[in-house]
Amino acid sequence: MNERLQKQIDFIVKIDEEKNILRQTHLSCHGRRENDAEHAWHMAIMAFLLQEYSNEKIDIAKVMILCLIHDIVEIEAGDTYAYDEEAKKTQAQREKKAAEHLFGMLPDDQCAMMHALFEEFEHGDTPEARFARAMDNFQPLLLNDANEGESWIEHDVARSSIDARQKTTADGSKKLYEVIETILDRHMELGHIRKG
Amino acid sequence: MNERLQKQIDFIVKIDEEKNILRQTHLSCHGRRENDAEHAWHMAIMAFLLQEYSNEKIDIAKVMILCLIHDIVEIEAGDTYAYDEEAKKTQAQREKKAAEHLFGMLPDDQCAMMHALFEEFEHGDTPEARFARAMDNFQPLLLNDANEGESWIEHDVARSSIDARQKTTADGSKKLYEVIETILDRHMELGHIRKG
Repeated sequence: MNERLQKQIDFIVKIDEEKNILRQTHLSCHGRRENDAEHAWHMAIMAFLLQEYSNEKIDIAKVMILCLIHDIVEIEAGDTYAYDEEAKKTQAQREKKAAEHLFGMLPDDQCAMMHALFEEFEHGDTPEARFARAMDNFQPLLLNDANEGESWIEHDVARSSIDARQKTTADGSKKLYEVIETILDRHMELGHIRKG
Repeated sequence: MNERLQKQIDFIVKIDEEKNILRQTHLSCHGRRENDAEHAWHMAIMAFLLQEYSNEKIDIAKVMILCLIHDIVEIEAGDTYAYDEEAKKTQAQREKKAAEHLFGMLPDDQCAMMHALFEEFEHGDTPEARFARAMDNFQPLLLNDANEGESWIEHDVARSSIDARQKTTADGSKKLYEVIETILDRHMELGHIRKG
């Protein structure tokens, strides 16, 4: 096998490890915790089915690949829970180091491409990244909704923390942000989300 | 929320169940069994990274969505192991019924689109479906390779059975088929795959 293909295959086998990176979200109907690969798969299909709600015209292939690869760095940097303020302080540094090592396994052109895609998602400064980030917020919210707020209750999450995160959803889709606010209002009434 | 968006969200929450459909393949490094969502995620990224090896020019967005959705029917039809000849007799009928029910949850236009994508993957008669099917064959083979032939040994699989399945890989990518043959030859020598 030539060197280029060997590098590609080594990377492909390496990212199998993303299936063991657990998130705080649980599968619907009070299931086990979800892993990063499952979350990314779900986000990519959601992006495809909900693309009509993007605020801006988007290249759906780009959105799907952003969704699929956005958490690969967590294989080495670990998952950082959206509401863990301490862990978030070191997140960027941990993920940068992981990106260099993991994407560095690929041939130079694909290494550069993966770095660019990862940065695009992180910065959220293109229509595609904004919509992909909206999926990153909406997907766990739908699972929390299906689970009667399980993760919000477990981590005693405040509405202001959720709102701070979900602001970026509106950047990708005003329509889906409206739906999210309605869902959150219901869980506030049910006492699943802390006031304040 | 309007009826269209409610249907889309109901479908999105429903397919969360794909994360509980287990395959015969194990994660690399002797891990637990893989589920359908993880497998589909892995295939879609592989398609993106390996697209240069497609025999024909392909629309990568189409290939990725084919990879992502091809096993959704298994939520209701169950996984059918590639070398289980009895289960394969009823597979088409079980999957047709599941497709009607599951895709029927979506608005009419998206229901029709998902049926069309699923049929396209199954029939393998477009360049995109041929390449997606090649990924469907190559992905578990890479995991079996990383696991020293674990699933082949467990199910006492014969080389002729693997070859019969992998023929379709060559329809999508002659180059990747060559790699697969080399990997299989090595596992034959190691006694992980039965002769005949």
